[in-house]
Amino acid sequence: MSQATPGRILSIQSHVAYGYVGGKSAVFPLQCLGYDVDIVNTVNFSNHSGYGRFGGLRASAAELCRVFDLMEENGFLYGERLLTGYIPGAEALSAVRDLAARMRQKSPELIYLLDPVLGDAGKLYVAPDTVPIYRDALQYSTIITPNWFEVEVLTDVRISDLTSLRRALKVLHEDYHVPNVVISSIPLRQWLLDILPTHIRPHADIHDSDFLACIASAKSPADDPATSAVHAQCIPCLPGYFSGVGDLFSALVIGHYKQSNITCIPPIGETETPLSYAVSQALTKTHAILTLTHEYAQTLPEEHRSPSDEELDGRDIERKIRRMRGRELRVIQGQDIIRGAKPVEYRQLLPWTEFWEAKESH
Amino acid sequence: MSQATPGRILSIQSHVAYGYVGGKSAVFPLQCLGYDVDIVNTVNFSNHSGYGRFGGLRASAAELCRVFDLMEENGFLYGERLLTGYIPGAEALSAVRDLAARMRQKSPELIYLLDPVLGDAGKLYVAPDTVPIYRDALQYSTIITPNWFEVEVLTDVRISDLTSLRRALKVLHEDYHVPNVVISSIPLRQWLLDILPTHIRPHADIHDSDFLACIASAKSPADDPATSAVHAQCIPCLPGYFSGVGDLFSALVIGHYKQSNITCIPPIGETETPLSYAVSQALTKTHAILTLTHEYAQTLPEEHRSPSDEELDGRDIERKIRRMRGRELRVIQGQDIIRGAKPVEYRQLLPWTEFWEAKESH
Repeated sequence: MSQATPGRILSIQSHVAYGYVGGKSAVFPLQCLGYDVDIVNTVNFSNHSGYGRFGGLRASAAELCRVFDLMEENGFLYGERLLTGYIPGAEALSAVRDLAARMRQKSPELIYLLDPVLGDAGKLYVAPDTVPIYRDALQYSTIITPNWFEVEVLTDVRISDLTSLRRALKVLHEDYHVPNVVISSIPLRQWLLDILPTHIRPHADIHDSDFLACIASAKSPADDPATSAVHAQCIPCLPGYFSGVGDLFSALVIGHYKQSNITCIPPIGETETPLSYAVSQALTKTHAILTLTHEYAQTLPEEHRSPSDEELDGRDIERKIRRMRGRELRVIQGQDIIRGAKPVEYRQLLPWTEFWEAKESH
Repeated sequence: MSQATPGRILSIQSHVAYGYVGGKSAVFPLQCLGYDVDIVNTVNFSNHSGYGRFGGLRASAAELCRVFDLMEENGFLYGERLLTGYIPGAEALSAVRDLAARMRQKSPELIYLLDPVLGDAGKLYVAPDTVPIYRDALQYSTIITPNWFEVEVLTDVRISDLTSLRRALKVLHEDYHVPNVVISSIPLRQWLLDILPTHIRPHADIHDSDFLACIASAKSPADDPATSAVHAQCIPCLPGYFSGVGDLFSALVIGHYKQSNITCIPPIGETETPLSYAVSQALTKTHAILTLTHEYAQTLPEEHRSPSDEELDGRDIERKIRRMRGRELRVIQGQDIIRGAKPVEYRQLLPWTEFWEAKESH
């Protein structure tokens, strides 16, 4: 760990006493990377909602504004970076959007990573009235990290081929003025496999296991307005569901993002952008923590490893709780990975140079 | 960092968005030491009260109980360790005391560090009706870490000589059944210097700078009921006031406390107890973090280093805020110290073997 200070970051997320989602998944890794993290908790819950039984305090919009105002009065508000995750409800989300607007106005150099936590796998898990507020907040962001479903919700584009993927990215870059878009995970279906350049396709037989693709699209002022630098990589899926993965990933993206590189010489150029570098680091470390978690879960007694089954889980809540406990992210045990002190396989995003020129293959 | 897991610890403390007091001072160090920390925030404030302007959410006793109950129902409550710090108000404190009683009953092996945050330097900074609740909670503790003033408040003994120091420790060990008492800091006045064994007195000329003594008294079931193993060390005082030091110290004490050693063979014996070992580690690392913070504050422009002055601070709140900002603990920048990866001067507590036998020297 060098003595150089990466600086301060304001993290606005949910908090759970037990387990690793929201702030519990994001803050410790950022601290390990050397950031002073200012932490505003949007909720203070016992555990995440996936356990079935959960609850606690929810901050109102007025309460959040009071904390933001006090921080501003005391001169604590204008750090270099802002990270926002799950925000409960339209009012609180509006308060956070207004804060982002204020911070952006005060510090044009602000690096703001907005993780639009809306849903996954075709299901919205926030109230529909938050969606337009998220859309409105996009203009203040530096980086966004939606999954494929969140991209669809934000852009109203159903992603099913290269044309629609391009259209969705164009909407985000041009209509919503987001300079850096990371589609954090998108299932590697046949259509995507068909359009991916050979050097980005997984080496393994893709029928042996499922893969997810991660796509980063960075637009710099020098770019042709109609294009961007696109990078991608594929990652094998680990079986079962893990909570808090997106929160960890987003934290690592902003933690590794070096804004100064955008304008520095030598330019990072075609093989790497500040975004692709940060996402490569985040993907590498997130996957390594997931692997560590998966391996740990495999060592648990059988009753802690029952597969997801809505019917059985519904009849016996303890069954689900036992399984989920064993799948809490091993962020603490993997801290050497986060710090870069323990080498793991590097999962570098590679340039998808023909992204904007290539014709649909079918 | 070894792969062995130190286990889980439930930390119940105040939370501030900005700065390092309460949970912000305690949790990250415990995570660095490898603990999975379950975090219940008693308040969610913008910053600590020392800044003058502060505020936010305060959890009611009912809200705390709701979170504890949910954690219990889900099987998350019974970890190996419990750490409690500042709890706002008598009702919330009663809820935490009841929780400690439940956890102690369920797990007799529970390691509970109770930091009775009551006041300092002769001033109580909690409501007086919390004092009897703290006294009642002592019976569930494994270790307590009061400063000298908190010892006086809890025991009703004014500490001014060896006799009164012995009496205060006796009250805590015998009347309140606390096995391990750490007097975290006590100014090294002449009376204390007179009774300290030579090998524990500071080597430096004590008139050149102020010193604080730290005293650890461990009672094991095998001990003569009237005595305990007492260890002590002196530490030079750094100029000015730092917030959150006690929270960091207490976290490091519980983080380094190895209960298994109490009964293991070979016995740690006269030169070291599990308590003196943990306190030596905590004192070493806390002092090193303080030194780092002090050195950092010295590099700041003059207006950030104004000495405390109630009159000037009262007229200009910004004066005080600037000073306090520069004195926030450098916990993040000193993480290698906490992890033991960066060697610092070891401040080992030494046995005060004659403590219970020695006569007053005057």
